[in-house]
Amino acid sequence: MSVTDEYLANNAEYAKTFDGPLPLPPAKHVAVVACMDARLDVYRILGLNDGEAHVIRNAGGVVTDDEIRSLAISQRLLGTTEIILIHHTDCGMLTFTDDDFKRQIQDEIGQKPAWSAEAFGDLDDDVRQSLTRIRNSPFVTKTTSLRGFVFDVATGLLREVS
Amino acid sequence: MSVTDEYLANNAEYAKTFDGPLPLPPAKHVAVVACMDARLDVYRILGLNDGEAHVIRNAGGVVTDDEIRSLAISQRLLGTTEIILIHHTDCGMLTFTDDDFKRQIQDEIGQKPAWSAEAFGDLDDDVRQSLTRIRNSPFVTKTTSLRGFVFDVATGLLREVS
Repeated sequence: MSVTDEYLANNAEYAKTFDGPLPLPPAKHVAVVACMDARLDVYRILGLNDGEAHVIRNAGGVVTDDEIRSLAISQRLLGTTEIILIHHTDCGMLTFTDDDFKRQIQDEIGQKPAWSAEAFGDLDDDVRQSLTRIRNSPFVTKTTSLRGFVFDVATGLLREVS
Repeated sequence: MSVTDEYLANNAEYAKTFDGPLPLPPAKHVAVVACMDARLDVYRILGLNDGEAHVIRNAGGVVTDDEIRSLAISQRLLGTTEIILIHHTDCGMLTFTDDDFKRQIQDEIGQKPAWSAEAFGDLDDDVRQSLTRIRNSPFVTKTTSLRGFVFDVATGLLREVS
């Protein structure tokens, strides 16, 4: 049995006590952008209830065109206005460089990705970089609150980046 | 008080009983790609425990260059091999077209996004489109299981797309 099958069995249990459907637009008008890291259960970390907030996640919790796309749809079509950005300690993105990562792929398959891997050397700097990319986007214009944090995987606490 | 401040108060409570840190690589070697929809608490839907799986999310749960970037990092640096893709019923991406979305932005701010909004008209078709994009990527090469599902926001159940 694959892990996917185990998770499908969990889903059948989940559905037995499921209480839906909720409305489509996020009730709290919040969008979260966070790292994909397995230790970041965003709903539990922030105490989100079902239906309250969009949750956008990727390697690093960085902001590329696809996060701008998601935020533009979130704000323009579904009415979110607050944005919470979350990076975290012990992040995999701190352990390599774009050049090395792309070189390894090129050596292995003969083709170098045209995209940046978005690795970073300093957590706070990259939170600020991500905040700046959102602020500078002409497509994310409905923001009333934009704040960035580092989640500590040892303590469970969020620390705001100023 | 902003909603962000409410969530920070929740986080302080969460940290009081937090039990960490866990290792960086996902213990179950799984990566999930799902829609950002507020009603998809991916950890609960699949019964994920902390530290088991990467969770990648965006508007629609679609696969663009940024999801390929995240999956490539997930597989090559952190050892995941199974991929679970999740779209859902009542998705906002079914309610508009790329052309209309981009035209509205152009009319409002004078600039049209260079990216696609990735709206879709049929859920199962778009799950298959996303699976195909992963299969066809030269950068996501360690996959042992790749399966796509539609989450029903009325029942809580996942239905596999064949």
